Amino acid sequence: MKKLINDVAHVVPDMLHGLTALHAGLTLLDGQNIVLRADAAQAAARGEVALISGGGSGHEPAHGGYVGAGMLSAAVAGEVFTSPSTDAVLAAIRAVAGTGGVLLIVKNYTGDRLNFGLAAEIARAEGIAVEMVVVADDVALAAQGDHAGRRGLAGTVLVHKIAGAAAASGASLADVAQVAREAAAAMGTMGVALSACTVPAAGKPGFALGEREIEWGLGIHGEAGVERGTLVPAAEVAARLLGQIVEDLRLAPGERVALLVNNLGGTPASELDITAGAALDQLAARGIAVERAWAGTFLSALDMAGHFADPAAPG
Amino acid sequence: MKKLINDVAHVVPDMLHGLTALHAGLTLLDGQNIVLRADAAQAAARGEVALISGGGSGHEPAHGGYVGAGMLSAAVAGEVFTSPSTDAVLAAIRAVAGTGGVLLIVKNYTGDRLNFGLAAEIARAEGIAVEMVVVADDVALAAQGDHAGRRGLAGTVLVHKIAGAAAASGASLADVAQVAREAAAAMGTMGVALSACTVPAAGKPGFALGEREIEWGLGIHGEAGVERGTLVPAAEVAARLLGQIVEDLRLAPGERVALLVNNLGGTPASELDITAGAALDQLAARGIAVERAWAGTFLSALDMAGHFADPAAPG
Repeated sequence: MKKLINDVAHVVPDMLHGLTALHAGLTLLDGQNIVLRADAAQAAARGEVALISGGGSGHEPAHGGYVGAGMLSAAVAGEVFTSPSTDAVLAAIRAVAGTGGVLLIVKNYTGDRLNFGLAAEIARAEGIAVEMVVVADDVALAAQGDHAGRRGLAGTVLVHKIAGAAAASGASLADVAQVAREAAAAMGTMGVALSACTVPAAGKPGFALGEREIEWGLGIHGEAGVERGTLVPAAEVAARLLGQIVEDLRLAPGERVALLVNNLGGTPASELDITAGAALDQLAARGIAVERAWAGTFLSALDMAGHFADPAAPG
Repeated sequence: MKKLINDVAHVVPDMLHGLTALHAGLTLLDGQNIVLRADAAQAAARGEVALISGGGSGHEPAHGGYVGAGMLSAAVAGEVFTSPSTDAVLAAIRAVAGTGGVLLIVKNYTGDRLNFGLAAEIARAEGIAVEMVVVADDVALAAQGDHAGRRGLAGTVLVHKIAGAAAASGASLADVAQVAREAAAAMGTMGVALSACTVPAAGKPGFALGEREIEWGLGIHGEAGVERGTLVPAAEVAARLLGQIVEDLRLAPGERVALLVNNLGGTPASELDITAGAALDQLAARGIAVERAWAGTFLSALDMAGHFADPAAPG
């Protein structure tokens, strides 16, 4: 394992130090792995709904990179691929809550649901209005009939954006939560990997792929996917991912979507653009109108080479 | 070699198709690997100086990703790690030149200097005002006394930005060229790699590094660096790179700089932020004021894991 780190035990505080040092609008909650908008108190005083997300680290720029005006008020970072504690989430809620209340945006993993959910309960008992939205945009497990187990993937970033815009416009907590739930429900994401990722504390890749193998329908924690196959051209990768997403969302010709092509960390920009170009061509051929499209590293899995395609009906 | 591509022979046109499909403000010069501002004709009609950069591909988002208002008017893409032809550069000049003239921003490589330089000569003979600025920000070769051979690295992106701002403000060709030359002269960059990159047409990495080895002072074309060493903590990596840059630029306490920490492609955002945080701490300890700082993938070398640190006096 080769990594540009100082110490495997300090990866999270060191990276959050760098993030907040780079961006003047961000600050750390003292002694905690919690990134805050520097102007969180002013936003709370205006009565704006505060948005909090987070989860295990290793998905940068998610979620600390999305703290700022029009997106998150705070991001709570756990250790790599490990949910933050209930206490940490509660500290973030207390730090940013105003009269407008707080919306928690949580990816669908047991640990995150539990710790964010418990923190929400405690905060409510303290008189803070808190709502929670769970994002479960993974469509890879659909074929297995296991809808309840769908993971939260890169679509979470679009929920940040859509809910953040609603909060910044002065919408109420109930309305911001409703917008976020509708956006989350209208999304589908599926991933593919050309390589596994290496968790710093583990020191070796989570699974091994042969020279011509790829992994379909994987998550963002180094776990294996639903199927292993042979490498195919980028256009075929896009076709399979889009096909499964379009089928899952029952997208019909004439519908309008946003497309997010997400780099899991190790894919060169050139390959991401090639894949995004193929996806845009295929959506056009299906008669589906793409209103917005992005390709980049939005929610990663450390150094994993691969990507997610994520068409979503705009919120 | 595993890559998300359709065909090694179509990597460049496929990626430019994706780039221009993703961004409505971009267009391709018909049949060529040249990205243009969709509003290049209007900018030329206003008398704005047109900016053109480019070079071999494999450095995405450089240079096509920097085409747009306030930065480049056009980017000319050669094959991977191969200079574009004189004819291609000339076609770009003719496509964007207005009464304000054209500035070519070229990284210091023999092929690029030759082909951009010849195209400039031909364009001048056609009556188009053309200036050329060569960026040679690499300080790794300083210790060897080979200053003439310094390579153009990630600092080129800051030259795009600084010259682009000058051009958008309505400055003359002579003034935009002067600003760009001063910015290029005030920059220093040095790279480190944890892994080599794989050129699609070659199919295997350009050099091999052991499990605990890193390469110091390398370029952006998969070539080896000036020295191989043992992996050290991120703060030590930052200290060595900064030390060499600060010495080369003779930066004294009290001076003001901009810091660009560039991902060569395969470094996770978390590691880049850790390294950037260390660099910012060290510049503060040296009494050097950082006016602007960025960390991200600005000029890559395909999938290479590593980074450049790039302090530069603001233009």
